[in-house]
Parts: sequence; structure tokens; C-alpha cells
Amino acid sequence: MIPAHSVTITLPDWIDEVVDFGAACPDDASRMAVAVRLARENIVRKTGGPFGAAVFRADGRLAGVGVNRVVPLRNSVLHAEIVAFMMAQSAIGSYTLGAEDSPGYELFTSCEPCAMCLGAMPWSGVRRVVWAATREDAGRLQFDEGPVFDATYEYLRARGLRFEAGPLRAEARAILAEYGLGGGEIYNG
Amino acid sequence: MIPAHSVTITLPDWIDEVVDFGAACPDDASRMAVAVRLARENIVRKTGGPFGAAVFRADGRLAGVGVNRVVPLRNSVLHAEIVAFMMAQSAIGSYTLGAEDSPGYELFTSCEPCAMCLGAMPWSGVRRVVWAATREDAGRLQFDEGPVFDATYEYLRARGLRFEAGPLRAEARAILAEYGLGGGEIYNG
Repeated sequence: MIPAHSVTITLPDWIDEVVDFGAACPDDASRMAVAVRLARENIVRKTGGPFGAAVFRADGRLAGVGVNRVVPLRNSVLHAEIVAFMMAQSAIGSYTLGAEDSPGYELFTSCEPCAMCLGAMPWSGVRRVVWAATREDAGRLQFDEGPVFDATYEYLRARGLRFEAGPLRAEARAILAEYGLGGGEIYNG
Repeated sequence: MIPAHSVTITLPDWIDEVVDFGAACPDDASRMAVAVRLARENIVRKTGGPFGAAVFRADGRLAGVGVNRVVPLRNSVLHAEIVAFMMAQSAIGSYTLGAEDSPGYELFTSCEPCAMCLGAMPWSGVRRVVWAATREDAGRLQFDEGPVFDATYEYLRARGLRFEAGPLRAEARAILAEYGLGGGEIYNG
């Protein structure tokens, strides 16, 4: 076993084919469409699990995107939300999306976040989090969201974070189901 | 803003000066000494926050190490535990430390994990987690551990994970205090 001193995290090479980083997305529906499209492409192209996420500035400019990269990159941390935070923070050159002069950032994710990703929210500096498929949808398909409680959301909301179920739930749930039916790996489920 | 498509996560360049990857660490004290030494060196050399972590095989072989890299690498996810998991998984070539044929892995961390890092534990495949400084120690120094509840530990223990307060608490707490007194950045506190 050779010790690792660095790890490189990459988006799949098809990202620029399906994401227009220059487009403005004026509303929740158009922002969620980016996240759900990422989830779909990720299973169609077999580059990871059935999850996608995108970080937008409050004005609708795209700051960064992520897809689940756990299996291909052999890294259990790489949920779509985590990858999206990393890419957005790299693009703006700061460890926080919530600096005082920040325009305000929002995370759109194809599925309600797991305990790890919820725990990452306050560190990230994101102000608003919107999902398509719910925790119940994921649970029914054997994706375990981990130790998430009502108190988790209460805690985070008390710190100024906003959480909402958003558009495209049916589409996002269908992607989870399709992945399961296709024999996709449900790791550590 | 140029969109990011990859992010490289590096350990500080002093790691090989202070970590002997070939040494076997037979007991909790010697394993925790690695994690706490990493935390100390990280503040002395100003390469991140006052936290260190190390993943060991059950037989005492070191699989990977991490230090907090949030500020220098501009990435809110890079807590010591997360970095240690990434490096260990890269070294063994798997997204899980808990595969069926796994020898069993343990995480030693200089401070009780935050909500994000606890949420990362079941995904990582680690079997046992031991810390030095406690959540109370961290909280007194304005480090916010996030939405962690008794139910969080109950949930994770029910899934077979073991959690323990371990040796070197005083040493690890002193590092947190020293970092605060030195004006170290307590981001998103």
C-alpha cells in the first residue's frame, strides 16, 4: 500500500456537453433542471450514482456543478452536493460561499441531502438548499440518508439556512428507480 | 468566474517529515499520537486548522492521514477526517474501508467529529472512531460541531460503528486553545 499525498477530483468529461455555464437560470424550475439533468446523464453515461447538484448565485448565474463520483473515483465523500461545493468554491476562490460581500448562493440538488451533506451546508456558506426527490423517495430505493432528524433541520434553520422541497420530484425519483432497476451499485446501503 | 472541472486535494509538504508510514502503531495511544502530532504541526507550520486524523488498519498499519486544509485549499469540506478518508481510500483503491474482505479500519482524530464528518462515517466503511479533544472542548473554543445529537450516535452505533473518547485529550485541547490565542481563523464559527 503506497500512502496517498494528493487526490484529484474530476467531473466527468461530458459535463460541457450538457451544462451551459454561461446561461442564467432565472427561477427554481430552470435551476433544478440543471441538477436533475446531471443526475440523469450520470447514470446514462455510467460515471457515478444517480445524483446531481448545482450551485447558483442568487441572480441565477451558475457557480459550480457536481455529480456523484463515489464509485468511479473510489472516494466515499464524493456525493453530488460535496462535489458541487468544491467546484463552486474553487471557481470563486474562497472556502465559503457566504462571505460578507457574497451575492448569496443556493444549492439545487436532485435528492434531499444525506447527513454528511447536511452537515456540510453550514461550512459551505450556502444560504438556500432546494431538492427534487425527497428522503422518503431515496429511502424507498434503499439509499440510506443517515442520521438526519427534524432537529437537524431546526438546528440549521436557526443558523439562517433555508431548506425547501422544490420542482421535478417525479423526474428525480424516476432516475433513482431507474438506477436501481439497472443494477446500479447501492454502496454501503 | 471560470467554472471548475477538477480540484486537487494535497497534504502539506511536511507530511513525510513527521509521519512514518511504515511504522506499526500497536495501541490506541500510539495511533492517537499520530493524529495529535498532525494537528500540532498543521498549526505550527500554518498549513490549516488545528485538526489532524489518521486511518489505521486494525493491525496498526497506517492507511492514510489528513489535516484540516479548508483555508489554504479554499474548500470547506476538507476537515482532517475527510482528508484522511480520501487518502486512505485512494491508497487501498476502494471507495470503502469496509469491504467484506477488509482487515477493518479505525479512524483516530484529534477532536470529536462534526456533523459532516459523522455523516461521512457510514459511507467511509470505517469500523471504529476514536477522538482526543471532545465536542465540549471544541465548543468552548468557538468551533461549532453542527447538528450532532445523542440520536446521531445511537443511529450510527446501531449500524455497527464504534465511537470512543480516547487518549491525549489534554494535548489536543491545548492545540485548539493555542490556535485560537494565535489569532487562527475560526471560519464560519
